[in-house]
Amino acid sequence: MSQVALKPLLATVLGERQARPPIWIMRQAGRYLPEYREVRARSKGFLDLCYSPDLAVEVTLQPLRRFPLDAAILFSDILVVPDALGQSVRFEQGEGPLLEPITAQTLGQLRPERVLEHLAPVFETLRRLKHELPADKTLIGFCGSPWTVATYMIGGRGSPDQAAARLFALQEPAAFAALMDILVQASIDYLVAQFQAGADVVQLFESWALNLDEEAFRTQVIEPNRRIVEGVRQRVPNAPIIGFPRGAAGNIAAYVAATGVNAVGLDYSTPLGFAQNAVPPGMAVQGNLDPLRLVAGGPQMEERARQIIAAFADRPHIFNLGHGIVPQTPIAHVERLVELVKNG
Amino acid sequence: MSQVALKPLLATVLGERQARPPIWIMRQAGRYLPEYREVRARSKGFLDLCYSPDLAVEVTLQPLRRFPLDAAILFSDILVVPDALGQSVRFEQGEGPLLEPITAQTLGQLRPERVLEHLAPVFETLRRLKHELPADKTLIGFCGSPWTVATYMIGGRGSPDQAAARLFALQEPAAFAALMDILVQASIDYLVAQFQAGADVVQLFESWALNLDEEAFRTQVIEPNRRIVEGVRQRVPNAPIIGFPRGAAGNIAAYVAATGVNAVGLDYSTPLGFAQNAVPPGMAVQGNLDPLRLVAGGPQMEERARQIIAAFADRPHIFNLGHGIVPQTPIAHVERLVELVKNG
Repeated sequence: MSQVALKPLLATVLGERQARPPIWIMRQAGRYLPEYREVRARSKGFLDLCYSPDLAVEVTLQPLRRFPLDAAILFSDILVVPDALGQSVRFEQGEGPLLEPITAQTLGQLRPERVLEHLAPVFETLRRLKHELPADKTLIGFCGSPWTVATYMIGGRGSPDQAAARLFALQEPAAFAALMDILVQASIDYLVAQFQAGADVVQLFESWALNLDEEAFRTQVIEPNRRIVEGVRQRVPNAPIIGFPRGAAGNIAAYVAATGVNAVGLDYSTPLGFAQNAVPPGMAVQGNLDPLRLVAGGPQMEERARQIIAAFADRPHIFNLGHGIVPQTPIAHVERLVELVKNG
Repeated sequence: MSQVALKPLLATVLGERQARPPIWIMRQAGRYLPEYREVRARSKGFLDLCYSPDLAVEVTLQPLRRFPLDAAILFSDILVVPDALGQSVRFEQGEGPLLEPITAQTLGQLRPERVLEHLAPVFETLRRLKHELPADKTLIGFCGSPWTVATYMIGGRGSPDQAAARLFALQEPAAFAALMDILVQASIDYLVAQFQAGADVVQLFESWALNLDEEAFRTQVIEPNRRIVEGVRQRVPNAPIIGFPRGAAGNIAAYVAATGVNAVGLDYSTPLGFAQNAVPPGMAVQGNLDPLRLVAGGPQMEERARQIIAAFADRPHIFNLGHGIVPQTPIAHVERLVELVKNG
């Protein structure tokens, strides 16, 4: 009986080791590409870009025209969820996101019932991408994990130590739990709709899994992510899910054991031997080159990329950076990295 | 034969478990204390405070008048070393430190030969503290570890990801190695002089041990710290040294195995069971309560403090926060924490 082969990256998420690791690059559609900057300049703003299927499809596909990557990732942002919930979210040039911080008192003003309608353009983008992508390319959807999204909703902006949200969780535990409930449910609805619109895989971006002690990590990271995985799979059986708990470090083993994700993204500060021990054999890992090694390029980059490939040669491995690609990355270095991963 | 008992905290660093863990608090002389703010307001600036023995002795002793802590830590800053090397270092109110960034071209202008003379007031502060401290209180000296100090020297200020210094290390490896050599030697000289002036123990603050892949961690964190420990002990045999590699996470085991420190400080994101496995039995650990739990206070703080004490009950343990105490910490919460650690 003949069977259609799965897309290589999707197959890897599901636990099938490939001869060479498939590769995608976090933030692969981004400012290091002149064609992205050109589209971005034409848009009315960053959120407008996320909500305009014509533009979002275009920038999602741009990196695949340059490099033989194995996946396209939906062009969007983790903060479309608070935006959809009715919180004020702005992206100022050079400033990062700015939100009107929510408080225990204003939490009740969030409007979970409007999330799917507000995010309809994102699903349209995915439908078009599904249609346009070659059959061997995996289409990745995503959302921010509740804790990470909450750090912006509470703090009003990015911060090095997420102090505002961490303190809120300690001082207003009931309000914090209510916010987590809202974000868990919105994330489930959002991801299910992404699968229905054509996503092959989704990634949960827990970009701020660092700066939490193990008790906080359990309640603020593990438990909400576990609930999302469970909730999505109730409606999309066996939904393939990558978790990326950046900075989870000593909590990685607990994270993979408890959340139910198929694959785990490793940030670049995760030592390779440590990851091998923390993640069960046969489970897929994704990562984890330091993006600055890609900026600097040359032998140091190639040597480290080869170390990463060799370390994970015995298990399903998706090559990626250990954090998003940065704007000053030379395109020639990306070409060389993809070539090395594909062909040694 | 009768023997004078060692100070409890010093004894703990050296591997002797106590019935109750001794305690000190990182940044215990600081802005959460009104009497500190009063002295700070009288000083001509932050570095002036560090270099004025009258004032530095006073603020070092302030927290011990309030709380039955087991150690005084020299009031100073990790950036006195670049200042002593001749780099321009300023502390602007509310801005954090600002340095004139060094480059591969200006590296040669650093003046290692003037470090000890420039830091003479620090040694005077230690001599006076030695004289004033009760016999059972440990006097802790310190310096910043070379990588952490270099992130400020290269970046010109604190940054969430130390990108400037990380990129410098990749793109200018020879200049970077030369800078590390200068900082290793200056740190050895500085710490030896601190011991000679009366320090019982010194702590190496590697505040930015995060955001490094394992190769960078090895060359930028482990190796310079190992060289400092070795260099200090050549001149101060068996010098007691605490290493605090904040964010070392998956690299902690390698750090303690290779550097030769007596005790290791654990940041608050280090899970307790993970630390037990990563640090050899019998070796002292220090930490690791989240400073924001101390801000919030109450049952959650007490419960977590008890978990930490219980987890390390079978080995030498110095209770501390997992990062510096923050300015908004209520003094009553500090009183309660110290009471709990001392008396259960």
